[in-house]
Amino acid sequence: MSFSEHVEQLALEKAKIMYSFMGDEVPTLFNRKKWKGKIIGWAIQDQDFRARLLRFVDVLPTLKTDSAVYKLFQEYFSDVDAIPPELRIAVDRLSRRTDLDRVVPTILKRALDSLAAQFIAGRTVADALSTLHAFRTQGLAASLDIVGEEVLSDDEAGHYVNRYLEVMNVLGPAARSWQDMPLLDADDRGPIPRLDVSLKVTSFYSQLDPVDWDGSILSTSKNLAPIFRAAQEQGVSVTIDMEQYYLKDVTIEIFKALLLDHPDFEYPGIVLQTYLPETAADFTHLAEWARKHDRRFGVRLVKGAYWDYETVVNPRKGWPIPVFLEKEKTDLHYEQLTKVVLDNIDIIRPAFASHNVRSLSYAMAVAEDAGLPKNALEFQMIYGMAEPVRKAVQKMGYRVRAYIPTGELIPGMAFLIRRLLENTFSESFLKRSFFDNTGIELVHSPQLDESFVQPPASVGFMNEPVTDFSRAQNRSAMYDALATVEENLGNNYPLIIQDREIFTDETTLSINPARPEQLVGRVSRANRDQAREAVDSAREAFVAWKKTSPQERADYLFRAAAEMRKRRFKLAALEILEVGKTWKDADGDIAEAIDYLEYYGREMIRLGQATMPGAYPGEENLYFYEPLGVGLVISPWNFPIAIPTGMVSAALVTGNTVIFKPSGLSSVCGWHLAEIFKTVGLPPGVLQFVPGPGSETGEYLVSHPEVDFVSFTGSREVGLHIVSVAGKTEPHQKGVKRVIAETGGKNAIIVDETADLDEAVRGVLDSALEYQGQKCSACSRVIVVDSVYEDFALRLQRSMNSLRIGPTDKPWNFFGPVVDQISAQKIQKYIETGIKEGNALLAKPGPENGFFIGPHLFADLPLHSSLVREEIFGPVLVLLRAPTLESALCMANDSRYALTGGVFSRSPQNIQKVIADFDVGNLYVNRKITGALVGRQPFGGFRMSGIGYKAGGPNYLIQFMHDRSVSENTLRKGFAPSL
Amino acid sequence: MSFSEHVEQLALEKAKIMYSFMGDEVPTLFNRKKWKGKIIGWAIQDQDFRARLLRFVDVLPTLKTDSAVYKLFQEYFSDVDAIPPELRIAVDRLSRRTDLDRVVPTILKRALDSLAAQFIAGRTVADALSTLHAFRTQGLAASLDIVGEEVLSDDEAGHYVNRYLEVMNVLGPAARSWQDMPLLDADDRGPIPRLDVSLKVTSFYSQLDPVDWDGSILSTSKNLAPIFRAAQEQGVSVTIDMEQYYLKDVTIEIFKALLLDHPDFEYPGIVLQTYLPETAADFTHLAEWARKHDRRFGVRLVKGAYWDYETVVNPRKGWPIPVFLEKEKTDLHYEQLTKVVLDNIDIIRPAFASHNVRSLSYAMAVAEDAGLPKNALEFQMIYGMAEPVRKAVQKMGYRVRAYIPTGELIPGMAFLIRRLLENTFSESFLKRSFFDNTGIELVHSPQLDESFVQPPASVGFMNEPVTDFSRAQNRSAMYDALATVEENLGNNYPLIIQDREIFTDETTLSINPARPEQLVGRVSRANRDQAREAVDSAREAFVAWKKTSPQERADYLFRAAAEMRKRRFKLAALEILEVGKTWKDADGDIAEAIDYLEYYGREMIRLGQATMPGAYPGEENLYFYEPLGVGLVISPWNFPIAIPTGMVSAALVTGNTVIFKPSGLSSVCGWHLAEIFKTVGLPPGVLQFVPGPGSETGEYLVSHPEVDFVSFTGSREVGLHIVSVAGKTEPHQKGVKRVIAETGGKNAIIVDETADLDEAVRGVLDSALEYQGQKCSACSRVIVVDSVYEDFALRLQRSMNSLRIGPTDKPWNFFGPVVDQISAQKIQKYIETGIKEGNALLAKPGPENGFFIGPHLFADLPLHSSLVREEIFGPVLVLLRAPTLESALCMANDSRYALTGGVFSRSPQNIQKVIADFDVGNLYVNRKITGALVGRQPFGGFRMSGIGYKAGGPNYLIQFMHDRSVSENTLRKGFAPSL
Repeated sequence: MSFSEHVEQLALEKAKIMYSFMGDEVPTLFNRKKWKGKIIGWAIQDQDFRARLLRFVDVLPTLKTDSAVYKLFQEYFSDVDAIPPELRIAVDRLSRRTDLDRVVPTILKRALDSLAAQFIAGRTVADALSTLHAFRTQGLAASLDIVGEEVLSDDEAGHYVNRYLEVMNVLGPAARSWQDMPLLDADDRGPIPRLDVSLKVTSFYSQLDPVDWDGSILSTSKNLAPIFRAAQEQGVSVTIDMEQYYLKDVTIEIFKALLLDHPDFEYPGIVLQTYLPETAADFTHLAEWARKHDRRFGVRLVKGAYWDYETVVNPRKGWPIPVFLEKEKTDLHYEQLTKVVLDNIDIIRPAFASHNVRSLSYAMAVAEDAGLPKNALEFQMIYGMAEPVRKAVQKMGYRVRAYIPTGELIPGMAFLIRRLLENTFSESFLKRSFFDNTGIELVHSPQLDESFVQPPASVGFMNEPVTDFSRAQNRSAMYDALATVEENLGNNYPLIIQDREIFTDETTLSINPARPEQLVGRVSRANRDQAREAVDSAREAFVAWKKTSPQERADYLFRAAAEMRKRRFKLAALEILEVGKTWKDADGDIAEAIDYLEYYGREMIRLGQATMPGAYPGEENLYFYEPLGVGLVISPWNFPIAIPTGMVSAALVTGNTVIFKPSGLSSVCGWHLAEIFKTVGLPPGVLQFVPGPGSETGEYLVSHPEVDFVSFTGSREVGLHIVSVAGKTEPHQKGVKRVIAETGGKNAIIVDETADLDEAVRGVLDSALEYQGQKCSACSRVIVVDSVYEDFALRLQRSMNSLRIGPTDKPWNFFGPVVDQISAQKIQKYIETGIKEGNALLAKPGPENGFFIGPHLFADLPLHSSLVREEIFGPVLVLLRAPTLESALCMANDSRYALTGGVFSRSPQNIQKVIADFDVGNLYVNRKITGALVGRQPFGGFRMSGIGYKAGGPNYLIQFMHDRSVSENTLRKGFAPSL
Repeated sequence: MSFSEHVEQLALEKAKIMYSFMGDEVPTLFNRKKWKGKIIGWAIQDQDFRARLLRFVDVLPTLKTDSAVYKLFQEYFSDVDAIPPELRIAVDRLSRRTDLDRVVPTILKRALDSLAAQFIAGRTVADALSTLHAFRTQGLAASLDIVGEEVLSDDEAGHYVNRYLEVMNVLGPAARSWQDMPLLDADDRGPIPRLDVSLKVTSFYSQLDPVDWDGSILSTSKNLAPIFRAAQEQGVSVTIDMEQYYLKDVTIEIFKALLLDHPDFEYPGIVLQTYLPETAADFTHLAEWARKHDRRFGVRLVKGAYWDYETVVNPRKGWPIPVFLEKEKTDLHYEQLTKVVLDNIDIIRPAFASHNVRSLSYAMAVAEDAGLPKNALEFQMIYGMAEPVRKAVQKMGYRVRAYIPTGELIPGMAFLIRRLLENTFSESFLKRSFFDNTGIELVHSPQLDESFVQPPASVGFMNEPVTDFSRAQNRSAMYDALATVEENLGNNYPLIIQDREIFTDETTLSINPARPEQLVGRVSRANRDQAREAVDSAREAFVAWKKTSPQERADYLFRAAAEMRKRRFKLAALEILEVGKTWKDADGDIAEAIDYLEYYGREMIRLGQATMPGAYPGEENLYFYEPLGVGLVISPWNFPIAIPTGMVSAALVTGNTVIFKPSGLSSVCGWHLAEIFKTVGLPPGVLQFVPGPGSETGEYLVSHPEVDFVSFTGSREVGLHIVSVAGKTEPHQKGVKRVIAETGGKNAIIVDETADLDEAVRGVLDSALEYQGQKCSACSRVIVVDSVYEDFALRLQRSMNSLRIGPTDKPWNFFGPVVDQISAQKIQKYIETGIKEGNALLAKPGPENGFFIGPHLFADLPLHSSLVREEIFGPVLVLLRAPTLESALCMANDSRYALTGGVFSRSPQNIQKVIADFDVGNLYVNRKITGALVGRQPFGGFRMSGIGYKAGGPNYLIQFMHDRSVSENTLRKGFAPSL
């Protein structure tokens, strides 16, 4: 009999024994005689109800008043299509009561408490102690986890450290005083700690991000050191939980760093997720590392709890899904790794965490086959779930450890939701066993159904994925690019007119705002004569370019996109040095530039098809677009590649010829863009690169009668000036100039009482401070509803305070300089006003050298303050307090701008209200308000924020064209060909 | 045996006899051993080839040079998909020759001559005489028709009269000298004329149009009188041909009038078409009339030759198709009318015109059954067709008359094309007999296949049909409406602000430009205070109106459309009196207004649906539109209902509130529009009616900071002024004003050497002179290629000169006053310049009273003349000569305007070139350049002709809105509901 046949046989035997021990017992959550079981049952049967339930449970603990609970309950459930009959009866019965607004909240909160108690050990250390004690009397070991909010600041990370220390310092000694229980307190090699704590690395460093690989490892392991020391002192084992895939590699590195830092600590452990194909290699790597360093550690083998998250977040970024899509593959991988883990038992303390009888019995079988005693391994299960399974394993004489979180309900919610997801997942073992009542036939070797359909490959436009800096090769590519670009700084860049490169005597110096002494480049400046030449050249080239087919024009864009992909890291590196973007912001800018090229190319192919309105015999109508003529593109420095790429490519692909005048602050980036178009063979004269001062070159070009349109992105003042200049039509001008302008914003985010503050603080922080607030979409006002104002303000202030400031070529600096001295001075003035007029919750200085201004948060400002009303374009955030959502909306709308806005809320009604009434071009719900993606969130505002239709949207290109109608009478001598 | 059984039996016997006489003979056109038969065969088998062939034959005689023939031949046939193999061989053989450019034209012209000779008796009267003589020797009688160009002027009609007189005065005496042939020269009642002439009423009066019912009858019958007199003198019979259905009723009336005018003329005849269901009633009517007046006349019963035309033109106008769609129904109707005609033989001289053996034998059978001698009836067939059938009928002893046209090839082309259509029509008897080789089984009683599929009812937007003034009830409805409106002239009209009617002391007097002493109405004038109030009211109403659903807003438009339909004639009558439109122009304006309401309503429902860009898990994106705010609509007087309806309804339906300032010259019309919206319940404040002087009220409103957009149609000067005012943004203004403007045009039509001059002259005339040229789309330059310049100029000049001028409430005046004294003076100045600078081919004065300026045509003007360059907005047309199409295009494009343009050409390449290179918003091919239809020819220009996307097109409404994006992150605690 082969190994596998033998193990299969053994596993089946074990399973039979387990089933016999389980008998008819049903886990609490599947007991349909009880309400919890009923609700789980409904959620299993109805996806819509499941979603509502999860969302309602998520927000419920946050709600502070009965009326809020009652209102939200109605919002979530009053329009349910199909309420289960049993629930309907209960609701009907209830609805006869007149005090519903009191009764319903009471019932709901009681239900929530009961649900929480099912999974969470209690709020305090004392609660936890009594839970652990109760476990012990049931013969159960425990791993304690402290649930936590998302750690957004150093303070919050510190708080976490303290709570873990408290747990260990209180429970460690307590555990030592417990009576000895051999099965729990020792394995085959001797005594083991009586208590295990599980922790997540993200709780210990708010700036943890693999983009800053070394810094993340260093800071996190440094912050975790006291816990490891305490664990060692108190005889507690520590298991590092595994979270999202994005953090997997860095988590493993942190784990390794911790082991090296704590050479004498014997009981470290790590979790490995078998839904990741990569885990097999990770284990091999860890095992080799352990052998090399002569260390032994625990492995908790799990299936993985972030499946929903991974399948949502990765495709959203355009990244591959890192998890098995098929549950059976995960199960099979679990068995394969079970064998591998047990094969390495010399360096591993194995723990198998599962509720799946097959997975458990398979582990027992492999261990038995390997001649291991029962106490050489342990099984781990989540407290509150799968009780019959847990008891059966215990009865079989194995050590079972319950995984149990302790802490408050709000921070525990993520854990709770994961459990509800798990229990209501249609393929889960528990659901199939105890809801579908499938018996031992579930227990078989995992079968791969190869017919499983992969999601179809998408066609058409797809956003260019941002770079995954959790991958080492991407980080080193960026380091290499930075080095290369830095070596080549200080070059001279010419104008490009027709096919000539013109080096002028007068030049603009572009410098690194983080190191003003570093010259990025010396860029030629066009005078009036050269500007006129550029117009003539564009006019001349227009004749042929207009007649180039839309497909052919689009092909230039696609080739430019391909070229940008090749130069991706170098372009990003240049942005980092020229305008002070962070790695991720710079990378995102290139991805967006590629998006514009790919999107507008496809859009032009779509719009290039004439339509045939009406279907009447004897009449052939055509409706199609033609270019406007010669366009002037004036682009800003803050998205130094993406924005000009969008503006230039839109103007070009629609058949116009273009004079491109980039901002002087990013004109080296601008030159590279022009050069890319040259590289891909754009005919001479179709695109001229004409940098120069706005007051001279810009003004001249805007008023030139042969310029047919101006596409501008920049400040409101300049935008309005262009509009008024363009509004004057010269006597001999052929047409009225069209102006397409994206200007400023004074964008607000509203945070209501139902908001998830973890998300809200992070969202506001990113919106306000990414790229130092120098985005037209940036949040500069956050309007918080009274009841959550204080909490929010504190967390936000701490979070802002935790940002690392410095030159952004170092990936550990998430916050860089502002773009130049003038900007810095302007922002500084606002800060001074803020300090005078309001209350500076945070006023953080930046480094001395470079144009650094740290993050600032102001509260209690009068509504007429310039900080509340004017666009600052820097890292200055205004916090406003509103009594209600309505008043928050009023404040939010009280602006001349209408660009972006946001709301953090979990009230469906509030969300609808904000969508309807918040006058902004781009509204974001429960996410940051920056980072609009081409094709998905067409971007642009109205009022003083812009003129025209949204960039990256279906109407954008139309603006660069006029429409034409042709109607042919096909009737000749009474005869018309049929249609 | 019943009548029908007996007749069926008899008919079958006759048919058998005919078939036996026919033997194996094949008509020339179906003789596939000869090239004519081959070509007909290919055309039958290949619809594409058929269309190319017909079009090429149509243009061929017009071409003056070999190179033109060769070029056109290539254009039509070089890209044929499937050339018949036999032709391919011929072509291949030919293509080896090096002198193709000479050989091909020679072959083609020879072929055309041969084809023409097949059908046409010759060019001159002498030719005709010899043909008739030849016929007589073959025992054939004849009906002679003089082919003609479309008659576009009194001169051309006069020319026609002369040619008919010449024919009769030459051929009449000649015929009398012929030897007697009893079968041909007498019927059962005695001698009959030896010659018949056929004629079309349209050839005798260029202004023939049923809208001017009495005038058309009077003038046409007056013009025909000399012919009837000559016929009587020369012993010639006259048959009035039947043309398009639209002219049927008036033709019958003209026929009756002629009979009354010529009481002693014994041989009038008329054609009746059995493809018209109405013909049965027409015959009954005619028969009763004849009995009452004791007259006898000939009836030529035909199937009908305008089937293709009727099935194209009527649906294009939204009118019902007046002909049977199924050929079998036409055949059955023919038999039914055969019986009826023969039943009335006491007052009818019956002639059965058909090539269908069944139809012919059925007529023989009915006659025989009725005991009529063979010579009591006659059969008529077209010369050159169905020779075996004709001979068989002759052999059976019946009188056969050949219908034969005489004249030039170009004017004969319409006749020739009808014959080719007939011979290649898949259901034609001849084609089925001689191409499909179906035998006597074709001869059966016509069967109606009830399963014949009717064209599906159209869904969605359909243009409102214009009124068919050939119908008596429509003419009297218009007369009634004019009377009613005229009785109620001179009222006072208030402003409408919010829901208040405000009568001001100062008023604008609106007068009838045709009778300046006639006061149409006294309209209140808003001052600044009232204008401000209107803005406030609109701003207030905006809040609720914005939130009204798109469907609900659209419903107001649909109700307004219904209301307009009810008031249709009264509104048109008002336009006639207030601004001097003709009946048809006024009627078309109301139809267009209804179109805007129906189209924009549907468009808003379409655009009101949010779209969901991108499909990514965990992300819900919405993209939708919202109104801009308060809009100012400034409308012109020249389309006094349609244009303001379009502008107002577009602004309203998109959710904006509107201040509507109509032109002072059409403010009574404007008031009615506002009143209609009030009637259908538009909430107060959503639409304000605020007439007033542009320099004061208009200026104030345009610069008001609370006005978000201006929608303007009018002159370029005012448009540019509005753009420049709107371009200045006030310090406290919320947004940049959007301006949507339709301004002027200096529109050109190009006529190339391949143009069909009948169509070109008519198209240019209508484009230039409809509504006295007071349309922004009107043609004011016609650029004619050298080789056709003289012909074209002469015909155009004569055609323009034939227009009847006078007050347009009289439907016989196709040309009315210009709108006011100022306009008249301005136009007069251009005329004076024209006389100085160029050559006035026509300078026709108008009546003294009223603001009349007759049509003017100028040639030989220098290109820099103001007449060539400036918009005149009156009945002044400039004729330009161009050596080539390329230079014509250059001239056409040499304008600051780019609104409409046209080309008359039958060269596919030239048409493509003009489409590609003629810079106009609306280009029309082979039709007039005015009268764009909503939804079919979206309307608007660029350069100095307008700002924005086309009215009545898919992008128009978008201009009144901005777009919004909402992006919701639906991921909560790692869970997102599936999409």
